[in-house]
Amino acid sequence: MSKTKVGIINVTGYTGVELARLLAQHGEVELTSVTGRSAAGKKLGDVFPHLADINLVIEAELGEVDLAFSAMPHRESASEVMALFKRGVRVVDISADFRLKEAAGYRQWYNFTHPSPQLLAEAVYGLPELYRSQLASARLVANPGCYPTAAILALAPVVKAGLIEPEIIIDSKSGISGAGRTVSLGTHYPEANEDATAYALEGHRHLPEIIQELGLLYQGRLPAVTFVPHLVPMTRGILTTAYAPLASSKKGEEINKLYRDFYRGEPFIRVVASPPHTKHVWGSNLCLIYPTVDPRTGRLIVVSCLDNLVKGAAGQAVQNMNLMLGLPETTGLEALAVYP
Amino acid sequence: MSKTKVGIINVTGYTGVELARLLAQHGEVELTSVTGRSAAGKKLGDVFPHLADINLVIEAELGEVDLAFSAMPHRESASEVMALFKRGVRVVDISADFRLKEAAGYRQWYNFTHPSPQLLAEAVYGLPELYRSQLASARLVANPGCYPTAAILALAPVVKAGLIEPEIIIDSKSGISGAGRTVSLGTHYPEANEDATAYALEGHRHLPEIIQELGLLYQGRLPAVTFVPHLVPMTRGILTTAYAPLASSKKGEEINKLYRDFYRGEPFIRVVASPPHTKHVWGSNLCLIYPTVDPRTGRLIVVSCLDNLVKGAAGQAVQNMNLMLGLPETTGLEALAVYP
Amino acid sequence: MSKTKVGIINVTGYTGVELARLLAQHGEVELTSVTGRSAAGKKLGDVFPHLADINLVIEAELGEVDLAFSAMPHRESASEVMALFKRGVRVVDISADFRLKEAAGYRQWYNFTHPSPQLLAEAVYGLPELYRSQLASARLVANPGCYPTAAILALAPVVKAGLIEPEIIIDSKSGISGAGRTVSLGTHYPEANEDATAYALEGHRHLPEIIQELGLLYQGRLPAVTFVPHLVPMTRGILTTAYAPLASSKKGEEINKLYRDFYRGEPFIRVVASPPHTKHVWGSNLCLIYPTVDPRTGRLIVVSCLDNLVKGAAGQAVQNMNLMLGLPETTGLEALAVYP
Amino acid sequence: MSKTKVGIINVTGYTGVELARLLAQHGEVELTSVTGRSAAGKKLGDVFPHLADINLVIEAELGEVDLAFSAMPHRESASEVMALFKRGVRVVDISADFRLKEAAGYRQWYNFTHPSPQLLAEAVYGLPELYRSQLASARLVANPGCYPTAAILALAPVVKAGLIEPEIIIDSKSGISGAGRTVSLGTHYPEANEDATAYALEGHRHLPEIIQELGLLYQGRLPAVTFVPHLVPMTRGILTTAYAPLASSKKGEEINKLYRDFYRGEPFIRVVASPPHTKHVWGSNLCLIYPTVDPRTGRLIVVSCLDNLVKGAAGQAVQNMNLMLGLPETTGLEALAVYP
Repeated sequence: MSKTKVGIINVTGYTGVELARLLAQHGEVELTSVTGRSAAGKKLGDVFPHLADINLVIEAELGEVDLAFSAMPHRESASEVMALFKRGVRVVDISADFRLKEAAGYRQWYNFTHPSPQLLAEAVYGLPELYRSQLASARLVANPGCYPTAAILALAPVVKAGLIEPEIIIDSKSGISGAGRTVSLGTHYPEANEDATAYALEGHRHLPEIIQELGLLYQGRLPAVTFVPHLVPMTRGILTTAYAPLASSKKGEEINKLYRDFYRGEPFIRVVASPPHTKHVWGSNLCLIYPTVDPRTGRLIVVSCLDNLVKGAAGQAVQNMNLMLGLPETTGLEALAVYP
Repeated sequence: MSKTKVGIINVTGYTGVELARLLAQHGEVELTSVTGRSAAGKKLGDVFPHLADINLVIEAELGEVDLAFSAMPHRESASEVMALFKRGVRVVDISADFRLKEAAGYRQWYNFTHPSPQLLAEAVYGLPELYRSQLASARLVANPGCYPTAAILALAPVVKAGLIEPEIIIDSKSGISGAGRTVSLGTHYPEANEDATAYALEGHRHLPEIIQELGLLYQGRLPAVTFVPHLVPMTRGILTTAYAPLASSKKGEEINKLYRDFYRGEPFIRVVASPPHTKHVWGSNLCLIYPTVDPRTGRLIVVSCLDNLVKGAAGQAVQNMNLMLGLPETTGLEALAVYP
Repeated sequence: MSKTKVGIINVTGYTGVELARLLAQHGEVELTSVTGRSAAGKKLGDVFPHLADINLVIEAELGEVDLAFSAMPHRESASEVMALFKRGVRVVDISADFRLKEAAGYRQWYNFTHPSPQLLAEAVYGLPELYRSQLASARLVANPGCYPTAAILALAPVVKAGLIEPEIIIDSKSGISGAGRTVSLGTHYPEANEDATAYALEGHRHLPEIIQELGLLYQGRLPAVTFVPHLVPMTRGILTTAYAPLASSKKGEEINKLYRDFYRGEPFIRVVASPPHTKHVWGSNLCLIYPTVDPRTGRLIVVSCLDNLVKGAAGQAVQNMNLMLGLPETTGLEALAVYP
Repeated sequence: MSKTKVGIINVTGYTGVELARLLAQHGEVELTSVTGRSAAGKKLGDVFPHLADINLVIEAELGEVDLAFSAMPHRESASEVMALFKRGVRVVDISADFRLKEAAGYRQWYNFTHPSPQLLAEAVYGLPELYRSQLASARLVANPGCYPTAAILALAPVVKAGLIEPEIIIDSKSGISGAGRTVSLGTHYPEANEDATAYALEGHRHLPEIIQELGLLYQGRLPAVTFVPHLVPMTRGILTTAYAPLASSKKGEEINKLYRDFYRGEPFIRVVASPPHTKHVWGSNLCLIYPTVDPRTGRLIVVSCLDNLVKGAAGQAVQNMNLMLGLPETTGLEALAVYP
């Protein structure tokens, strides 16, 4: 039986290349086509030596595939996705272009008029822990952002249970690969090394996505979320610390049990008993979550962490693909974290 | 005229050695004695090659000095300080042993009975921006912790002005040197590199100090502070992001102006117009502060940063010494940050 | 059919824990027992969270296995290996205890009298690229050191072909994990970060191993090797630059072709066309080799790199095990490097 | 008495900005003008926050100064220098444009025809340890490259004494700031972090400078030098390991004494008794040198280290300026290294 053919649009960014790594090691699908404008015509292994075993040439246009991943920048991705959709190709879109339900959000946060509001309605938000059943039949999956994945997974159990007031602080620390492969002064090694900083305090583009999803869990009530992302000097990893007032007094153990129950059976969520380390998920598709209660103020504190390029991007995309194709959800994602 | 003689008890930790570096380059005092039990008898420059120009032997007991810095661990520092005090030596204590006003705090947070509650009353909390006038005549200065310095400076203007509700979240990111020079698995390079984590969620020892000082600014009302410290992979630097509800609606510019007014003339505080980078204070005694208002929730967000070993420890100790000795406050602390 | 049972003695060092990671993902053997004195009785996943999926308790003594890896420190490993040998268990010894052919080397370099010179004769040096045929039937394999693997693979083709004078300089740069998991001041993050240094200039213990193996390739003539290891601030990776005079004038392309021919078909050796990056082998079992000729002096320069914990230790041990068990050599070692 | 006015052409690269930091803290000269094309019109402190205390606007053209530093890229620097020279301004050129004595070298190594061979003859190579007497009256000083400074200082004593054969291997490890402030994929944080690599094996532009200076010390005999630079993941620092055959057998102590004698009284050279760490010179103008003899092969090994932006660039430029102006050589360069 021939394997499902899959392709990657824009393989040359960090998400694209991480997808290629994961798909090349995936036993149930075959990576048959990868595109990238600037590198078109080159062998994949010449641009990325760690992929030298993948015998593919980077193309200008995607070949015939059954399912495609778009790792294009936002706005550009939407048109790629629409074209694929017309051809009947199922798509996992890694960009932000189909994550928001309201077209107005794209004007407000991304400065463009969304070309296809009807596809927004069709797209399924690709967080399997919340939308597993819809993903099986999805024709278009909007793969969540890295920060939203860490934040929503950290808060979903208590939001859904109505246990916290909708006054939420999300403080996230990201490795530099989250800024992408395009060079800039801020990601120049001598600038980023031995430095920590906050950014986007006026509002990061991942914020509407977080509010939307938490709002759905609140059954439509939009929480007041303050989200501050930070860059810290490491390549991979996001550590998120979320704070919120508990609606009624709870002990840490009660909260911990609630989380364990909520995520029971989830292959990639691990509710842990002490604050997690990004190093413990390096290269894996895991998200570790540590919920606790501040003993003095009674506030909920949740620390979550994941590898921004795996569970925060390419790994989650593969997880979504597995669900779309009816494959075991963990196929190709079994790799343990590489430590130390 | 002979210079004031100063000494360092326990020169072999990171604070002690940083003090030695600063004092050796200080034109108005003379470093004449340094102690350290394990290294007693060795030349300072043999243990710390960057200090080879300082011609001192590490002693078991402190020689005759006019003013001493104690960089001993907490609990042990108290007895050193008491002995010095009896000899009439003025002291800057870098440990936590005289930071709390209430002796009960030491039992609760440090597991020992404080040996000298009367000295607690005598000690001045060494944050010059708040206590400059008392420091001139102080015989005992309790040098603040690194986290409290960044947190209190970030919040003092709005707390004093009564502009925020006493519901405060402080999320701090520290470089690894904050953990000291004593080796441990958590600070072993392969464990700490490419890792971010939160710790002490049950309550960090710097918390009572933060609450005490903010409470004094609130005129006795103790705020509900949640403080979560994090370790990020860099050697030096603390970046603190503080969150609090504004008591009444304010614009970012109003807040910014309030901060500029509050800190006007302060030699080591710079209220900045964009989120600061720890790299921009590396090796200097500066604290950069960026206050802003979250446009969607109206919450106050303040980002502050400093070098944990300078303004967060040894530099601030020198600043305190300058005030105690009637020297210009910036003497020996003029060095610009080393960038990149 | 039941799988071959394998065990790890001293799983708690970096080589041991990396072995556990690789063996847990190896489809053809079953990891059934792991030991570690200090952690005995604990779950493997409690000590190493990234291994939480491996359902094993760390034991004080190794259970019944068909093949064992000893990751004990040198000297202690020898007695473990001898005991296993008596029980008929095949062993891959990751320590240095069976790498040298001459017992005298242990007195000279390791300060102990080797307890079993006859086993030294029996042991096969576990560099598959040189000793593949002997490894299939080996009962005891001495897994090479990380530096020797990079150095010998870099030089074997020209030494065997008699193309260089035996005047060899080997300058190696290693990540800090090569120093092991035991904490020390030199590997304390604030000391090792932003630092580069050379060490062991009086003679590193990996030198006799390098000389022995190059000497065998020279058909007994011992080359004059200067080997200087360096520590650079990264967790994983060895980059080795080797220099030697060419016995007769050669062009870079000739040398490159010689290397390609020598390593043709080798699954884990890649002769590359430009200087390799340690990042391109991170987490994989590859060794990249770039041979060239200095155009001005005519000297041979060879740059090689590998992941010190994989091809430099645990991965090579698994490769040796595969050969011993008649499995495909790459089983369990197919993982691509994790980039970036 | 008014201070000597000095200026910096192209302040916006890492050498320029480091010069500004050092000159701003230099008590005997006044930094009055800085240029930079892309940033012209901006306040220096707006581009470089750590320099906010320097009240200068970046200009398009240099103002009136007594002495200028050119931190322009090579080729462009030559014309700047020639124009300054005509105006009677003394110049320290940090570019390579006046380092080579032979104009032909510029065609061969830098691909341009040198516009002023007569100035090449006039320029003094700015290595004070070798050319101190000529520097006092120099009108044009060619500030050495970072690699050549570390390499020449490591080898000068034995080359001048005729103690080594002219068969020299120089293996250097540099932090990433050596690649400058211009962004590139190779210096993008996620690419450079956790990576080590060699580059320029076909011949680095610093090689002719090294050969020229060692040749002059050999009294005209050009040594056969192989020089391989490497990038390692740190911001600052060069560690150089040099290897050469001793012309006659020597002990390590003899060599060490020779070095101590050669560098006796040098304010910035320290001959040390164990392999030095780049961390011990971070931010200082020191060069540490450790010469030894490989006990097995009798080869000389010398390890040297320095901060590439200080002794390797801006600090050495200030040292040269001090000599040109008749100031104490260490003025403005007294800062101890910042450790850890």
